[in-house]
Amino acid sequence: MTAPYEAPLALIRAAQEQAARRLGFAPAAEHEEVLGDTSAAVLEGAARLARDVLSPLNRSGDAQGAQLSAGGVIAARGFAEGWRRFCADGWPSLAAPAEWGGQGLPLLLAAATTEIWGGANLAFAMLPETAVGAIEVLRVHGDEPLRSAYLPRLVSGEWPAAMSLTEPQAGSDLSTVRTLARPEGDAWLLSGRKIFISWGEHDLAENIVHLVLARTPDAPPGVRGLSLFLVPRRLPHADGWIANDLRAVSLEHKMGIRASPTCAMVLGEAGGARGWLIGARHQGLACMFTVMNHMRIGVGLHSTGLAERARQLAHGYAAERRQGRDAHGAQRPIIEHADVRRMLLSMNVLTHAARCLAYGAAAALDVAHGAGTQPHTRARALRRVGLLTPLVKAWASDTAVEVSSLGVQVHGGTGYVDDCEASQIYRDARIGPVFEGTNFIQAQDLLGRKILREEAGFAELLEQMEQAAAALPPGAPLQAPLRSECAALRAWVQQLRAAGTRQGEIVAAIAYPFLQWLGVVAGAWQWALAAPELADQAEFYALHILPRARAHAATVAAGSDIIGRARL
Amino acid sequence: MTAPYEAPLALIRAAQEQAARRLGFAPAAEHEEVLGDTSAAVLEGAARLARDVLSPLNRSGDAQGAQLSAGGVIAARGFAEGWRRFCADGWPSLAAPAEWGGQGLPLLLAAATTEIWGGANLAFAMLPETAVGAIEVLRVHGDEPLRSAYLPRLVSGEWPAAMSLTEPQAGSDLSTVRTLARPEGDAWLLSGRKIFISWGEHDLAENIVHLVLARTPDAPPGVRGLSLFLVPRRLPHADGWIANDLRAVSLEHKMGIRASPTCAMVLGEAGGARGWLIGARHQGLACMFTVMNHMRIGVGLHSTGLAERARQLAHGYAAERRQGRDAHGAQRPIIEHADVRRMLLSMNVLTHAARCLAYGAAAALDVAHGAGTQPHTRARALRRVGLLTPLVKAWASDTAVEVSSLGVQVHGGTGYVDDCEASQIYRDARIGPVFEGTNFIQAQDLLGRKILREEAGFAELLEQMEQAAAALPPGAPLQAPLRSECAALRAWVQQLRAAGTRQGEIVAAIAYPFLQWLGVVAGAWQWALAAPELADQAEFYALHILPRARAHAATVAAGSDIIGRARL
Repeated sequence: MTAPYEAPLALIRAAQEQAARRLGFAPAAEHEEVLGDTSAAVLEGAARLARDVLSPLNRSGDAQGAQLSAGGVIAARGFAEGWRRFCADGWPSLAAPAEWGGQGLPLLLAAATTEIWGGANLAFAMLPETAVGAIEVLRVHGDEPLRSAYLPRLVSGEWPAAMSLTEPQAGSDLSTVRTLARPEGDAWLLSGRKIFISWGEHDLAENIVHLVLARTPDAPPGVRGLSLFLVPRRLPHADGWIANDLRAVSLEHKMGIRASPTCAMVLGEAGGARGWLIGARHQGLACMFTVMNHMRIGVGLHSTGLAERARQLAHGYAAERRQGRDAHGAQRPIIEHADVRRMLLSMNVLTHAARCLAYGAAAALDVAHGAGTQPHTRARALRRVGLLTPLVKAWASDTAVEVSSLGVQVHGGTGYVDDCEASQIYRDARIGPVFEGTNFIQAQDLLGRKILREEAGFAELLEQMEQAAAALPPGAPLQAPLRSECAALRAWVQQLRAAGTRQGEIVAAIAYPFLQWLGVVAGAWQWALAAPELADQAEFYALHILPRARAHAATVAAGSDIIGRARL
Repeated sequence: MTAPYEAPLALIRAAQEQAARRLGFAPAAEHEEVLGDTSAAVLEGAARLARDVLSPLNRSGDAQGAQLSAGGVIAARGFAEGWRRFCADGWPSLAAPAEWGGQGLPLLLAAATTEIWGGANLAFAMLPETAVGAIEVLRVHGDEPLRSAYLPRLVSGEWPAAMSLTEPQAGSDLSTVRTLARPEGDAWLLSGRKIFISWGEHDLAENIVHLVLARTPDAPPGVRGLSLFLVPRRLPHADGWIANDLRAVSLEHKMGIRASPTCAMVLGEAGGARGWLIGARHQGLACMFTVMNHMRIGVGLHSTGLAERARQLAHGYAAERRQGRDAHGAQRPIIEHADVRRMLLSMNVLTHAARCLAYGAAAALDVAHGAGTQPHTRARALRRVGLLTPLVKAWASDTAVEVSSLGVQVHGGTGYVDDCEASQIYRDARIGPVFEGTNFIQAQDLLGRKILREEAGFAELLEQMEQAAAALPPGAPLQAPLRSECAALRAWVQQLRAAGTRQGEIVAAIAYPFLQWLGVVAGAWQWALAAPELADQAEFYALHILPRARAHAATVAAGSDIIGRARL
């Protein structure tokens, strides 16, 4: 029997400590709280729920999937009960604002729970994560009546949320969104088709709050014409509730996250789905950008959770499975085989590097939003968030794909069989590089916007990384390569700045290898900051992972020429 | 609608030409035939069958899978008819010996068809591939009555084969195989349990020929006690045929290759499954080693086919899918986006490098087995086969995982949905690094046996690679790095030879990164040999793929110390 997911609390606490104290910001006041005993108790509660409730639903949810019946979408067995437990324990409200019923706890604490939910059951974890985004959009951009009507119920989890952005012709490029919103009284009537809507419909709650990107009749073409609407699944009515004019018409059958219903939705089959404008007209994309950081860091945290789960499963299997014999003829557990150790160590150091980076982004968000933060520090923290967000989203999700693949390999043939959770983790992990903005979109954001346009953030990051290298004991295996990678990154970006009109072309061609380069170096930075008792892991990272930086750097140096020139 | 698989005949012909003429052996006489018109017609026939029959069964076979009913295993819809067509057209007999009804064609020709079947439908392709191994074992080790009774029917495809080696406790380590064979008359009665038996039972044929590893009562422990038996599913009887005492008791539900029934078999529930010894008693593993090269190169060829199919699907999708706009506001197909071009070019050059290496191994086998080959050349060809086999199996299967993952990424969210064949290819590809000896086992064979014990082959290979670099036009982007990688490989292996008693420990720790290193360099070698009109692809390989060699080399240089020392 496979042991259920166990939250790695010691590593989580170490990553929180590192993110709060060693990333170059004075810890926000609320971070002292995160590092204290109350938070430890919170994490223990999350670990219990993950182990006892969410993890046991992971395999069964994958096997059964969500089903579309005549009456709507039915979630996999146990998910409705799991969601009730989740809400009853107050988890949806953890980091939500106190004025709307939330607990107002720091993101650095919520980050750990997000990782934990993702590791225990990613399909489930996607549901509360969507609400986090919706709450933030509504809090910042919603008008008072909308906030009063919806925020308390989103915060309590009574009404989950869904993001209805994508359309068949509009995926990475939202400029072609066609869903139409016509004004009617104080509201709007929406009609159109949306696809890839995670948890777009289900039987876990009485209502679902959709955020829908649509176009008003007077809208200019392109992304500047998009407005954001709140469209509830059910509408208040004299005698209770009536269904709004939107429904799931089909579910995707997917490679992974199968218990999360991915809906194709139709709005306005009977005249129009009633919705309310969030924020100003034609500012829909700007409103969504408010939560982009949250949601992308969320993918990084979920990916970290998946990698952690892959690691646990592989360790557990390797400790039990016996193949080959030692010098005395006794059968050896494969965890003693050098190549299995190599794979497990790779999984360890990649996973924890992703965790520390993602927590670092969450901590910087706390600093940026902290009530007591000075303007100068706030600006610096926002720059850091801007840089780390695409890096965390992309590098952690790529890392989860790699780590989960190593997990399959440790299991051998067993890892290829559906009964084995390692095979599910491998399938679940593959969505990470694709959704919430593909990893190329992250890379372009990182290099084209966050580094080229906003110079200071990258200079500060390099400085932090160099300080971490300098603070290592002399001769530590990470020291010299981390230093020289920082120098190489700085030099190459300077060269790119001097490229003039060719800049855009170069960014488009090698943004992704550049992100891989910075990612592996940032991982080294996190290991340089890690506690001395983890020095052996840091050394493994230096010897087995960081050398990849040279390969990425060489590819980046090749620029755009060959990509433009070679025939496909 | 997704276009069906199209065999890439021009690239296949180029790879055959390269393998026959440019790998440092005088072409075997039969290779002239491979490069001629008759063979071209054979390949066109294979391409037709793949496109019209096998490829259309790939998605439906995955969706439906094989089923275990009370009456036995039922293959997915259309597979039985597909197998009849496959046999009627003579494909099982292509490279089989003429004296047993085969067409005796060179492996370099069969290699192309193996790639084609794998690309069109891997689950199907595994069936004839198993027969190739069984035919070879029986031809070399079987006694006359066994050969007469079984070879003609294996060769015609009337009776497919299955390899029954693995047991629950005996996967990578066959020393613990427990299946027992007791003598009875001229035959043996076998009892035990086998798992992971591909196509172990099905309704495509009247009989199935199992090769079973088992232990005789007098057997010494360990692998030296294993004997190989032929155990048919049905036995001849006075009135026709009766069932032998073995049956599939369950099917694995797997991540991929779902239309290939992976059976758990029980032998001897009713006293014993009747079988006949192949080769000498206690020589079972040696008999199996006879076909290891064939079967492992087969995995490399199938992996090449999968990578090719991933590439085709991604190209097709990218040419159709529109996102973003050009300078004039027109929507652009994503194939014009630089990052999509980067991914497609990576898929191109990795796939074709794997193809050329695999064909090179097949061509060397032809030379080794060629009737007219001089003893000196034969020995050299066998050394080359020995080196290339584990490299091809492991590097091509890892490459298929990478290329199929790029394929998913090019498709975006669409690539995560079951309807999309790209998502199936990603799942199918993940078996490659696991079965037929895990990729670590390949790496250990490569470095520990083929390089350290048999010195000449590696020296010859490095010489060939250096000659290829030297023959490039001066300044060709591959030239300098290929040369310096060869020098670095030579130097490191010399150092390893001097490591004395620590050699074994080092091999165990870094054999896999070493294989990755040699693999990426050998891929560069193949691109150095490619025709001048592919120079842009070779350049892309030099700039985007070959730099990985530096990362692998650095990891290899780290040796075994940190792996032995770091805590898990």
